[in-house]
Amino acid sequence: MTQSKPLDSCDDRLLPADPTTRSIAHDLYDLVRNAPIISPHGHVPVEWFAENRHFANPTELFITPDHYVTRLLHAQGVPLSALGVNQKHFTDAQAREAFLLLGHYWPAYAGTPMRYWFEDSLRNVFGITEAFNEESAGRIYDQLNEMLQTDEYGTRSLVKRFNIGFISTTDDPADDLAVNDRVRADKDFPARLAPAFRPDRYLEPAREDWPDLVRKLGDAAGVDATSYAGYVEAMRRRRVFFKEHGAVLSDHSHMDVRSDRLSDYEANRLFKQGMDRTISAADATRLRRHLFSDQVRLAQEDGLVLTVHPAVHRSYDPQGLANYGMDIGADIPAKCDFAVDLKPILNAYGNNPDFHFVAFTMDDTTFTRELAPLAGYYPAMYVGAPWWFLDQPVQITRYLGDVVPICGFTKLSGFIDDTRALCSIPARHDMNRRLTSSYVAGLVATHQIDFETGAQIVKDSVDAQPKRVFKL
Amino acid sequence: MTQSKPLDSCDDRLLPADPTTRSIAHDLYDLVRNAPIISPHGHVPVEWFAENRHFANPTELFITPDHYVTRLLHAQGVPLSALGVNQKHFTDAQAREAFLLLGHYWPAYAGTPMRYWFEDSLRNVFGITEAFNEESAGRIYDQLNEMLQTDEYGTRSLVKRFNIGFISTTDDPADDLAVNDRVRADKDFPARLAPAFRPDRYLEPAREDWPDLVRKLGDAAGVDATSYAGYVEAMRRRRVFFKEHGAVLSDHSHMDVRSDRLSDYEANRLFKQGMDRTISAADATRLRRHLFSDQVRLAQEDGLVLTVHPAVHRSYDPQGLANYGMDIGADIPAKCDFAVDLKPILNAYGNNPDFHFVAFTMDDTTFTRELAPLAGYYPAMYVGAPWWFLDQPVQITRYLGDVVPICGFTKLSGFIDDTRALCSIPARHDMNRRLTSSYVAGLVATHQIDFETGAQIVKDSVDAQPKRVFKL
Amino acid sequence: MTQSKPLDSCDDRLLPADPTTRSIAHDLYDLVRNAPIISPHGHVPVEWFAENRHFANPTELFITPDHYVTRLLHAQGVPLSALGVNQKHFTDAQAREAFLLLGHYWPAYAGTPMRYWFEDSLRNVFGITEAFNEESAGRIYDQLNEMLQTDEYGTRSLVKRFNIGFISTTDDPADDLAVNDRVRADKDFPARLAPAFRPDRYLEPAREDWPDLVRKLGDAAGVDATSYAGYVEAMRRRRVFFKEHGAVLSDHSHMDVRSDRLSDYEANRLFKQGMDRTISAADATRLRRHLFSDQVRLAQEDGLVLTVHPAVHRSYDPQGLANYGMDIGADIPAKCDFAVDLKPILNAYGNNPDFHFVAFTMDDTTFTRELAPLAGYYPAMYVGAPWWFLDQPVQITRYLGDVVPICGFTKLSGFIDDTRALCSIPARHDMNRRLTSSYVAGLVATHQIDFETGAQIVKDSVDAQPKRVFKL
Repeated sequence: MTQSKPLDSCDDRLLPADPTTRSIAHDLYDLVRNAPIISPHGHVPVEWFAENRHFANPTELFITPDHYVTRLLHAQGVPLSALGVNQKHFTDAQAREAFLLLGHYWPAYAGTPMRYWFEDSLRNVFGITEAFNEESAGRIYDQLNEMLQTDEYGTRSLVKRFNIGFISTTDDPADDLAVNDRVRADKDFPARLAPAFRPDRYLEPAREDWPDLVRKLGDAAGVDATSYAGYVEAMRRRRVFFKEHGAVLSDHSHMDVRSDRLSDYEANRLFKQGMDRTISAADATRLRRHLFSDQVRLAQEDGLVLTVHPAVHRSYDPQGLANYGMDIGADIPAKCDFAVDLKPILNAYGNNPDFHFVAFTMDDTTFTRELAPLAGYYPAMYVGAPWWFLDQPVQITRYLGDVVPICGFTKLSGFIDDTRALCSIPARHDMNRRLTSSYVAGLVATHQIDFETGAQIVKDSVDAQPKRVFKL
Repeated sequence: MTQSKPLDSCDDRLLPADPTTRSIAHDLYDLVRNAPIISPHGHVPVEWFAENRHFANPTELFITPDHYVTRLLHAQGVPLSALGVNQKHFTDAQAREAFLLLGHYWPAYAGTPMRYWFEDSLRNVFGITEAFNEESAGRIYDQLNEMLQTDEYGTRSLVKRFNIGFISTTDDPADDLAVNDRVRADKDFPARLAPAFRPDRYLEPAREDWPDLVRKLGDAAGVDATSYAGYVEAMRRRRVFFKEHGAVLSDHSHMDVRSDRLSDYEANRLFKQGMDRTISAADATRLRRHLFSDQVRLAQEDGLVLTVHPAVHRSYDPQGLANYGMDIGADIPAKCDFAVDLKPILNAYGNNPDFHFVAFTMDDTTFTRELAPLAGYYPAMYVGAPWWFLDQPVQITRYLGDVVPICGFTKLSGFIDDTRALCSIPARHDMNRRLTSSYVAGLVATHQIDFETGAQIVKDSVDAQPKRVFKL
Repeated sequence: MTQSKPLDSCDDRLLPADPTTRSIAHDLYDLVRNAPIISPHGHVPVEWFAENRHFANPTELFITPDHYVTRLLHAQGVPLSALGVNQKHFTDAQAREAFLLLGHYWPAYAGTPMRYWFEDSLRNVFGITEAFNEESAGRIYDQLNEMLQTDEYGTRSLVKRFNIGFISTTDDPADDLAVNDRVRADKDFPARLAPAFRPDRYLEPAREDWPDLVRKLGDAAGVDATSYAGYVEAMRRRRVFFKEHGAVLSDHSHMDVRSDRLSDYEANRLFKQGMDRTISAADATRLRRHLFSDQVRLAQEDGLVLTVHPAVHRSYDPQGLANYGMDIGADIPAKCDFAVDLKPILNAYGNNPDFHFVAFTMDDTTFTRELAPLAGYYPAMYVGAPWWFLDQPVQITRYLGDVVPICGFTKLSGFIDDTRALCSIPARHDMNRRLTSSYVAGLVATHQIDFETGAQIVKDSVDAQPKRVFKL
């Protein structure tokens, strides 16, 4: 395999090849390249913010926890165990071996955003300019390993360096948010931090552990949650608790976004069956939709922004689930019909401009047909940034072309990194800034808008827009 | 908010940024920029053609009746009442206020075709070169208001100025077409005018007013339409009546394009139930499909081109419907399966080259998978131009790439403006000419066809092609 | 109609218009323009390889057997009989007339790959530089006709000229492969030839002739196949027989790719019903899915690569089927859900890296949502090249953008021509090389990868990649 050249430092990265458009894109990008990062939804553990945690080694930082990276190695036939996934004991030698495997299979990442983000991180976070490949992987591992032992590359130092203005964790409704509170109170923490309310498990009566979860929720709320009415009250309290502790949103990810309501009688009956473990699979789904409907209703009162990430075949591979657990990259997008599914929510609350509802999707056929038309009519509705598999140059560009002509820039969520891969945060936001600048440059180059209008759009996209959508 | 610059007068608008391709596109566009407009389907009221009607004010021209414009203001939280929608009394002061609101929210339109068409109209219809924005909106309103009082900007004067060669209205089957006839007989009316047969309401037995509609249809046809056989005869006569009065097409928009036939017994039975208001929702749908099948059969005899605009969740927002009526921009596209749904029609009539069937869609996944393959086999089948939300630069370009390689240019409908916004007609057609020239220029620049072939395609696209498809 | 210019000889064909990107694309394309053709799946009759067969006339070569070409003429209203389709007697005069028809309707092919391939063949296979059009069609016919009588333009001479390194036929499971064997043993045949196992008919118990097919299969395998167990054993033997005679893959095309297993009792019962012709349509589908599941299981043992081409409404037009038979261009793509349908296969065998499963689709919405995510996780899974209607510049470019960022280049099948149109083979592969070079050039021009990495990708795409996927 030919070795690649030193990592590309060219500032033209991701900007359109046409010289006229590239020049406009550069001028636009320059307006936002150094703007603080606003990250309203992500999965970095709050503990990383609480202390200047040192990563054990580069594999723990770049490979093991990042299912974007591990799934592609798995697709090459590498067992996830060799990457440290779900391994109780994973030695330094094994970690180094995993990094060499990444080097070996690096050509398989060409053309993917994982490669782009990793190389961006190496250069811009760690100052490594040598090309990453099979031959250099060991050297680079050792270099990184040394740096990671220094305070300069601890988690908190990195957060400071990344110029993060706002960042949200994702939290269990029963969490006491003590660590979040501590970080929020810490004047030395540079960013505004917020928890996020993520009650998915508590809304799935099909789960074996659902009664335990319900009791846990009730304990946290100081209320008996084992009746339907008690459960709703517990949810109400916990949402308010989160809001009081800085949360701006509640986030929901189920197989669909239906919210058909049951009658009170039916809701009570199915809730009881859920607690008794006598509920059928079909009824568990019906109850889940009803409970989700309650979340939307509660959002009208407490004002939390409501975000949805629906329609994923989670843990598609049962063998992988059994051996390695969830979040290993074996989640596959599912078809979705937002126009049909969201009707109850939008009919009830879509005209409430104080309610903010942001829908994300991995079914890219829904942007033009459903999400943008809905956001182009309902004040409450916003189109989420491209999610997961779509979080990359081709799809971000296509997304802008899909939705902007229909609902304009003001009905977009702004960029969401949605990641637990700490070092990819600046790389992802920078990618999006380059692509947004490029898209807007195209509008300017074809004389659909003037440069000043484009400049305002690009500036808003990283500042006013996400602040407005997420009520920051 | 930064104020935008004077409206862009650059003749490069919408042409590709690459200089080579742009230059070819310019040469192609020059061949058709001044060609007469052919508009086979639209919604301008025939009364506007009958006299040189003066618009009361700019808001009545540009905002209130144009749901493309109103829906985006609604999405910003502006109540439709403030825009004059469905308001019995809407004062001049309120109209001016509505125009100022448009100016205030003008940044929200950046990147949308509504902004592009409006600015095109201001400059090219009214000669206003000042940038439209919050600050200038009042000034521009007053300027427009004054112009609209002059005969030069009456409806008929505008039609003349727009160089319209052919234009069709959309009419009720029971209409006596007297106004249409008068305009058609008027030598002073510059364009060829045609009515169009649009019987949707009469095919929906689920409507409460269906028996009344059936009787109204029978009265217009001079036949008792209250039996199934009488109804079909009434439809036959009205279609022929429309044809004799200049119509070239019948247009149909239901939730799907299925046309499954019932047995004679079943058709008679369900028809009677429809008249008795005892029909179920499911049977009303079955009967509607059967009645649509009759329309297709009748088209074989009378030769009217048959166009379909299916699969819309009309009046998705019941609150909006109750307060403001239909056509307020709250219609959302629905999924569609043309290959499955059109089978009865195409199996029965698809090989009849004298039958012309044009399918429009807002489900853009169907162009490549269904519509182009069907049009690439059946002589009767044509792919409609991008409709509604798709009627804009990104989607028109994508549409050409979706369908042309599969069925070629000769199986496309040609551009359809489908609008009631009179001043946007030249802007929309000009947009399409620029985009078609750009797409063809791409084929020339990548040496897939030579310039002469491209020139013929572009010229045909605004003349020979729509004339052939719509039998003009 | 304007006559087109002499056929374009420009070497920039299909390369991006932007000069920087075009120059990079040229450099990449130069690396592979002369590489041997690898064609793992196609429909050229093996008899054409067995002898230096002379085509009767240009129409027999370019029109009659090529449903890509005939369907577009049919869509123009030309009866298929006039093109020789399914005609027992088709005179030379009629053949010449058909060719003139193609010339007459040549403008209708502008912008389609059929036009591009045909003009490429005329120039690069036959050295004809005159523009093809209505006026020149007769002259070109006569010129071609003369050439086709010479040995230089016999089938075998053409294969040699095309620099084909590997080519596969598509064969019936009961075929004795004698002709294949003879060609494979022939040192004078320049390419490596392989048969392919295509058992579709034998898996469709809904067919009237299914019992006969089962008996035929048993005869070929030397086993009584009229019981379920015997049938499976016969299949096993025939697959092994094909493997021993050079086959590398088994290919499957049904309405879906579901493979739900029946109980043994149910399988035996339905199999018997299929043999008795008492099976219902629904049960025939259930049995077919079970039998397909057996094929996948057998592939784990014999190691044949398994390819699927699902979801086509075959012979959509019953009138066309009755008059002209199958494969007349009246096949229409159907919707597909790979994530749902493939679950049993991938859950059972997806983690077996020795199993290679390649899925092709004409439903282009599935690339990003389903196929690439699945291939980006499962070692066994590969995404097939754009198939049929998608086998053209716009879609190949879009496909690369759809799948590469998600699963990388190493999980793609490499190009598949899938054609019976012999002369289009070099044109199609050349088209794909130009487009792959262009896509990769875009990654280089936007600094996502360096040129050396891009060069390796392009070289692998026509050599190492298909060899690895298809175990050559």
